[in-house]
Amino acid sequence: MSSPVPAPAQRALPASPIAETRHRPLPVPAVRLVGGPLGAWQERNGTATIPHCIKQLEASGVLDNFRRVVGESTAEHRGFVFADSDLYKVIEAVAWEIARSGTHTFDAWLDDVVALVARVQEPSGYVHTWIQGVAPEKKFAELEWTHEMYVAGHLVQAAIALARATGRTDLLDVARRFADLLDERFGPEGVDGICGHPEIESALVELFRTTGERRYLDLASRMVDLRGHGLLTVGSLGAHYFQDHRPVRESTAAVGHAVRQLYLNAGVTDVFVETGDASLRRAMDAQWSSAHDRKMYLSGAFGSRHRDEAFGDDYELPSDRAYAETCATIADLLWTWRMLLADGAGGAARYAATIEREVHNALAAAVDASGTRFFYANPLQLRHDHHSEENAPRERASWYPCACCPPNIARTVAQLSAYVATVTDGALWLHQLAAAEIDLPAELGAGTVRVVTAYPADGRVEIHVDAEVVSSGAALRVRIPEWSSRSSVLGPDGSHEREDDGYARVPLTPGATYVLELDLTPRLTTAHHRVDALRGAAAVERGPIVYCVEHADLAHEIDVDDIALVPDAPITVREGGTLAVRCRVIRAADQLYGADPSAEVGDEHAVIAIPFSTWGNRAPGPMRVWLPVSPR
Amino acid sequence: MSSPVPAPAQRALPASPIAETRHRPLPVPAVRLVGGPLGAWQERNGTATIPHCIKQLEASGVLDNFRRVVGESTAEHRGFVFADSDLYKVIEAVAWEIARSGTHTFDAWLDDVVALVARVQEPSGYVHTWIQGVAPEKKFAELEWTHEMYVAGHLVQAAIALARATGRTDLLDVARRFADLLDERFGPEGVDGICGHPEIESALVELFRTTGERRYLDLASRMVDLRGHGLLTVGSLGAHYFQDHRPVRESTAAVGHAVRQLYLNAGVTDVFVETGDASLRRAMDAQWSSAHDRKMYLSGAFGSRHRDEAFGDDYELPSDRAYAETCATIADLLWTWRMLLADGAGGAARYAATIEREVHNALAAAVDASGTRFFYANPLQLRHDHHSEENAPRERASWYPCACCPPNIARTVAQLSAYVATVTDGALWLHQLAAAEIDLPAELGAGTVRVVTAYPADGRVEIHVDAEVVSSGAALRVRIPEWSSRSSVLGPDGSHEREDDGYARVPLTPGATYVLELDLTPRLTTAHHRVDALRGAAAVERGPIVYCVEHADLAHEIDVDDIALVPDAPITVREGGTLAVRCRVIRAADQLYGADPSAEVGDEHAVIAIPFSTWGNRAPGPMRVWLPVSPR
Repeated sequence: MSSPVPAPAQRALPASPIAETRHRPLPVPAVRLVGGPLGAWQERNGTATIPHCIKQLEASGVLDNFRRVVGESTAEHRGFVFADSDLYKVIEAVAWEIARSGTHTFDAWLDDVVALVARVQEPSGYVHTWIQGVAPEKKFAELEWTHEMYVAGHLVQAAIALARATGRTDLLDVARRFADLLDERFGPEGVDGICGHPEIESALVELFRTTGERRYLDLASRMVDLRGHGLLTVGSLGAHYFQDHRPVRESTAAVGHAVRQLYLNAGVTDVFVETGDASLRRAMDAQWSSAHDRKMYLSGAFGSRHRDEAFGDDYELPSDRAYAETCATIADLLWTWRMLLADGAGGAARYAATIEREVHNALAAAVDASGTRFFYANPLQLRHDHHSEENAPRERASWYPCACCPPNIARTVAQLSAYVATVTDGALWLHQLAAAEIDLPAELGAGTVRVVTAYPADGRVEIHVDAEVVSSGAALRVRIPEWSSRSSVLGPDGSHEREDDGYARVPLTPGATYVLELDLTPRLTTAHHRVDALRGAAAVERGPIVYCVEHADLAHEIDVDDIALVPDAPITVREGGTLAVRCRVIRAADQLYGADPSAEVGDEHAVIAIPFSTWGNRAPGPMRVWLPVSPR
Repeated sequence: MSSPVPAPAQRALPASPIAETRHRPLPVPAVRLVGGPLGAWQERNGTATIPHCIKQLEASGVLDNFRRVVGESTAEHRGFVFADSDLYKVIEAVAWEIARSGTHTFDAWLDDVVALVARVQEPSGYVHTWIQGVAPEKKFAELEWTHEMYVAGHLVQAAIALARATGRTDLLDVARRFADLLDERFGPEGVDGICGHPEIESALVELFRTTGERRYLDLASRMVDLRGHGLLTVGSLGAHYFQDHRPVRESTAAVGHAVRQLYLNAGVTDVFVETGDASLRRAMDAQWSSAHDRKMYLSGAFGSRHRDEAFGDDYELPSDRAYAETCATIADLLWTWRMLLADGAGGAARYAATIEREVHNALAAAVDASGTRFFYANPLQLRHDHHSEENAPRERASWYPCACCPPNIARTVAQLSAYVATVTDGALWLHQLAAAEIDLPAELGAGTVRVVTAYPADGRVEIHVDAEVVSSGAALRVRIPEWSSRSSVLGPDGSHEREDDGYARVPLTPGATYVLELDLTPRLTTAHHRVDALRGAAAVERGPIVYCVEHADLAHEIDVDDIALVPDAPITVREGGTLAVRCRVIRAADQLYGADPSAEVGDEHAVIAIPFSTWGNRAPGPMRVWLPVSPR
């Protein structure tokens, strides 16, 4: 079998619906992030994070796991049953990095690892090094635990990325053979079976999109249909953990293992986009509201519980015990982007604002300034006496025994440009106000839309239409975030106000320049009264950036947990984007409970707040996003 | 070997130091709880809870686990590796119940099970049905997991209780043989080894107290000394979980698995009482402050984390995710009682007040009104959409796969009377103001001190000295809780004020009656400002009773999570001991985060609050102890 090279329309598209959707994505290379923080992050991702991940694949034994299956290594199998997916995610990251930058740095490595995977693949199409090398008798026998289809899903995604980015289809051949085996075994003619960890669903839909073969979509649909009917042996973790507690169409609340729920939702959204299944669409609209209206951390993170890595109940959002797995934010990015493309009930502006919140806060905080150390859990508060836990250390680690997060960050950052804009009939939509060059889709004209801005450090956004020919009536839709008191785009033809859908509408006039001046005055944010963990507290935000107070900025004798915010005092923006916030120091007796809070509130003084995404880059120690509001 | 019958001085004493301690305990039968809630609870424990536990030992397979080892059953082993301890705890409960009530109801059952355990015991002294019947190759090979010494500890405690309560020493013979085996293997001449779950330490010290054999105390000391030096293979749970993270003398913060930490502390306290080791005493004083000044729930519960069943960081006390295992409260009762006897730095009044808080709230809430259903986890808040978890269901269960809690409740309630009073040179100390008859210790006189009261339902406490002879200068020390605005005991000789140690001093005058009128005005309690989970909220307390608001008392359309307390309004006591609290209903938009809390606070009206200990006795549903305080 030899896979066809993807059609030009699919080139370098992370998600590429065949069905008609209102919003159509732009390829990774069509949007170039230049001169802003996202562009710089992508550079660092390409030069530091991806090479670091490649080294860790060797150091952690992932590559040896493959080699030993074909007698090329004598090492013991290392890592979890799903460790193969680390390699596939890094291949996907490399693919998008090639699409973005055109680099050839990784070509030889790619040749090696793709050939290695091909050698390990059994004639049947099966490839899963833990099963093959450790427990062959468990092949397809314990689907709740073995992650076989999860691993297959990442293989498919890596292969599609590589094909779309480079045109090379050798890995796609491997991936299709595995997918064909799955179809043979679990398809309409096969047995009923689903994976304990959703992920294959999205991959299969994208494989349908890439190959045009309907049976991959049918298999994804079948897996969605089979879920929630007790096919898995769930044990003491319960069915919620495995997303097998309720049929997908009836499952309207985000519950159980957060990453599994959110990957599943991305896949379900892919399925309903291609099949038009309205019952799945309704379930996903309800799920999206559940996850984002009642269960999302301010940073754009998900999962309140360490036990079972799970969503909490509605409004259960403790800052200190936020599990907030990096992969959950990434899974939500994938899902929310698909909801935007699918024109879900949440609305494009809300989806785009969520993506902005996630990228600039939860996702950005998961990587250190060097690009080589990572958080797995992303709490919004670290206490003085917190001791490191396996997945929730006091400071970022260079790798984890369960290394799902770092390669997931690498593949996500490499494709960030794809989330910036979409095209609809007659309009280019600017969802993210990043410094960028955007190639105008041919249907709208010929040329480039250039966004020049230091946003989010500065509120001025200039949009230059560097195009000579533009199709008649074509417009630019510019998202204007709702926190900005100024909400119009100024152009040569006057002012264009934000419309009800959250976007201003600007004519795509060749040569024109438009200017948006966002109001980046720092603001205090409070939470819904049912969020017990945040009662009586406020967070400082500026534009899309969530701030925190870190011990390193406090005088030696002051503890982060003894600071109260003066609510009506002005917040000053300092050089470098940090803030000066007026606070008082609380002093209290040792009594844990009593008739009186017995807290003395000292004199007002300035405390420095830094972007949450940058915490932990100095000495590790206490931090908090939400600050008590001073009672006087 | 035949164990001596315990000396009369040890009869029916749950904890019985040999070393001189300021406070000396009174035996279970010397204090009779009559006419009050604790007495009624003991009755229910004897007639409902203990028989229920006995039935469950059969139903859950615990007894079959023993029978199958000696070929008397063909059943598979059921339950966890430590399931034998369920039986031993029930035997201990039966023993104290016999001491308390003189019942013969359980005599035949006792004969059966004691003989069964004796048949299962190997000639070496070893008895542990999981090892013997399932994995003999693991005998003493995986001490972190097998709970062999934990199970031995409960066997020893049951045997001592039975000997002290009834004089029968057949189980004590069995227990000593096992203890002797442990001493041979792990004693000074043996290998270094400690159990993954502390418990044996206290049991060995009590075995020394019962038998007078110093080697049991030495073995307990040795196990305390060996802990915290990395003897256990801890895996991903980390050394904290197993209490092996730090030498006991250097471990000043309560961390890791809460039940293990608190059982360990009870054992360490037993050791320093008998050895006089000042470094252990210092560590225990610091531990007690850590657990009670920074990590205790208002209900007297411990353990903020479901993950690892662990203590949280300082001030990490979420109501909704309180793990608050029933066994942790019981372990703390055991420890705090020993700290009282040991004259620890916390002070007798504080220890006694802690015991009162624990018994009337966390422990009482763990059993339903019928005495046959139990909570394992005891959260202080249940949300609307909470789904049951294995150890944290929405409502009490009749048993658990890990059934540590129900038998632990049974043995604790059966010995409650032992916590009421102590004797020091020249004084009888009344720590708990329960309706009771207390036999005057011979050193003080001959007769009974009779406490007549409906406390805590009513604040009037009458103390009758029904004695004809009292030793010269003998006094009664009466604890007067610090929440009471009235703090004096009135007698025929005038008024006796609470002294600095928290107790009034009253002469033990034959025939005299003393009256204490406690102020039971309901009060609002708030928490230390560092407790993020409780900021802006207050709890209602009355005397030692913590209250909660439960859905069953609210109008249909009002949610427990939408109620705000009017802080300065009077709280009314209703018939039956419930309260009427003035509240407002909060109504809010759906927005999770925003510039404005956007909560509308409705009209003031009365909401019923019930004792936390009685929640969940109607339809299961939302509950909360801590209520937001209305901003206006």
